[in-house]
Amino acid sequence: MSTTAPRGFSAAGVAAGLKSSGDPDVAVVLNHGPDDAAAAVFTTNRFPAAPVLWSRQVLAGQRLRAVVLNSGGANACTGPEGFQDAHATAEHAAAALGVGAIDVAVASTGLIGVRLPMDKLTAGVTAAVGALSEDGGPDAARAIMTTDSVPKTTVQSRESWTVGGMAKGAGMLAPSLATMLVVLTTDAVVDASALGPALKQATSVSFERVDSDGCLSTNDTVVVMASGASGVTPSAEELTDALTAACTDLAMQLLADAEGSTKDIAISVRNAASVEDALTAGRACARNNLLKTALFGNDPNWGRVLAAIGTTDAAFEPEQVDVTINGVTVCRGGAIGDPREGVDLTGRAITIDVDLKAGPEQATIWTNDLSIAYVHENSAYST
Amino acid sequence: MSTTAPRGFSAAGVAAGLKSSGDPDVAVVLNHGPDDAAAAVFTTNRFPAAPVLWSRQVLAGQRLRAVVLNSGGANACTGPEGFQDAHATAEHAAAALGVGAIDVAVASTGLIGVRLPMDKLTAGVTAAVGALSEDGGPDAARAIMTTDSVPKTTVQSRESWTVGGMAKGAGMLAPSLATMLVVLTTDAVVDASALGPALKQATSVSFERVDSDGCLSTNDTVVVMASGASGVTPSAEELTDALTAACTDLAMQLLADAEGSTKDIAISVRNAASVEDALTAGRACARNNLLKTALFGNDPNWGRVLAAIGTTDAAFEPEQVDVTINGVTVCRGGAIGDPREGVDLTGRAITIDVDLKAGPEQATIWTNDLSIAYVHENSAYST
Repeated sequence: MSTTAPRGFSAAGVAAGLKSSGDPDVAVVLNHGPDDAAAAVFTTNRFPAAPVLWSRQVLAGQRLRAVVLNSGGANACTGPEGFQDAHATAEHAAAALGVGAIDVAVASTGLIGVRLPMDKLTAGVTAAVGALSEDGGPDAARAIMTTDSVPKTTVQSRESWTVGGMAKGAGMLAPSLATMLVVLTTDAVVDASALGPALKQATSVSFERVDSDGCLSTNDTVVVMASGASGVTPSAEELTDALTAACTDLAMQLLADAEGSTKDIAISVRNAASVEDALTAGRACARNNLLKTALFGNDPNWGRVLAAIGTTDAAFEPEQVDVTINGVTVCRGGAIGDPREGVDLTGRAITIDVDLKAGPEQATIWTNDLSIAYVHENSAYST
Repeated sequence: MSTTAPRGFSAAGVAAGLKSSGDPDVAVVLNHGPDDAAAAVFTTNRFPAAPVLWSRQVLAGQRLRAVVLNSGGANACTGPEGFQDAHATAEHAAAALGVGAIDVAVASTGLIGVRLPMDKLTAGVTAAVGALSEDGGPDAARAIMTTDSVPKTTVQSRESWTVGGMAKGAGMLAPSLATMLVVLTTDAVVDASALGPALKQATSVSFERVDSDGCLSTNDTVVVMASGASGVTPSAEELTDALTAACTDLAMQLLADAEGSTKDIAISVRNAASVEDALTAGRACARNNLLKTALFGNDPNWGRVLAAIGTTDAAFEPEQVDVTINGVTVCRGGAIGDPREGVDLTGRAITIDVDLKAGPEQATIWTNDLSIAYVHENSAYST
């Protein structure tokens, strides 16, 4: 049921002709209330797309009635005209919904550097508003897909209240989010000032620890809306837990569907001096093309793990580091460990455990292999 | 003539059976003097290979009589035993040459995490010493090849003195060097204390600005030896110029032969607030897999250039940045510029010009595209 699982929401997804395939490409998610608390996390890229610039203004008020999303065009690096397009989209949706433009966030995904066909988009928004339904969550999730092979949705049920959500993204996943659009909904009663910190905590241990290809998109957006329709007020901890569960579920679905990937790789860095050190070492592995190609080739090339973490400033003594791949400690004390022939990499799931022996902290970064299909998909994307 | 172009040097390359192909895999370069000034630059990876640890000790004295190099095994992450192997190699070569082990540097390249077959290696060193010749430079250059498709050599002739050199490397080229072994020779008379700064300057604007795949090797080594056999003492500037010319020539050969590459990409960042800013922005592009796959696909996807530099802290205003690809300004003021259809990417050479409009400095980073063949070669490397 996606974003319409919690009470107080309707959604729709329609085909507006933005995609040449004719697939659905415009979605609307509407919060019927009674509350309209909202929060969001956006890309940290210094070239934020026009819809990000617009939605940042909207979310500054911590209130939101609706989100309009489109695939088939990112409206990024489109200058002042692109911002006008994002603004006009919100105005058009607001008029159709009978709310103010400042109550409507906009999110876009697709090719960078191309203007949106506004006639098609606004007609699509009109159609989507007309199609809004309490069962519309799955349709909305389909309409935001780009190279995704499957829609991604989540439902986290708690006693008398629920968090629902949808996501799109199949590449460009990076530590500060990625071309990843996520809409979360909840019928919990939440003070607007508590929603932001809960969302930030949830994304910091989920989306921000998925680093599929190290690239940071111009359009990343995670929005959460709370309708209050359940009448239940969870504690801050309960809310954070439910949002974290929803974000983690969606993040793992993004990872599993990353463009052209054949492996889901969990890099766990243990006994680090700090969580930051563990993340730094994990990300260095997640961004090392030689390691990622080796794993694509089912090669437990642990030397490339050491070469990757050897470029970081994380605290460790080189002659103490152990590396375990899928349960086999192939590197012990920075040197040759058990025979690499014992490592079975034929499955999709790979676990790389790096023991820094430098402190009490740990963190896990998730990534994918670098495959021939990744190169193929991304070299053919816009041509 | 490679390393034997300057007077006072002999070299050899032989097949010792380290490579299963039977190709040459052991090289020796000997300095006959009268001088023995030397300097080197090594990897900054925190897991330096055993030969790097050995050679760092040797070069601390700024003197060197010979370099022994092998392909077919990196002797990296091999622990104390690996260091003993590197030491024993130097001892063996020193005995055969009638010098001290402390006069012999060692460099290795190949798979990480595997011990060298010392019986084969020492027999190869004996054979190479027996084959030393004033015409042996090309043989030595062939013996250090791994996935290189051609040997890389250079000769820079000045009035009455010369710099010669050889290099190996076809991947893992990174800003702080890469699995790249380079031996430079000169018959100039050079004070040992002047050779180090000249080499550092030469590598900083050549090898350190080539970033083929962002990966930093455990074995990178650049050694220069000065025989003084010409009797000519160049100025510090003349020496630096000649070394820079030799390093740049070799760096461009490495780039052209990078594993599986189909494009040589020069990313020039202009009007930056500092050289460091220009390098940071250039490297962000060089390491962006989405940009590199797009260029492999002949797609002038300038949005990915902006997305890459948008992740850096270089000084610029997003709405002022211009991007020109092969002469067409496809992005102007951070937004849509001239039609991307006008960009011809069918050739091997690609120039990306990023104008930050933030200051007077500029720098160029060279990289390659990310191709299907790169993934194929690197996923099949050790299996």
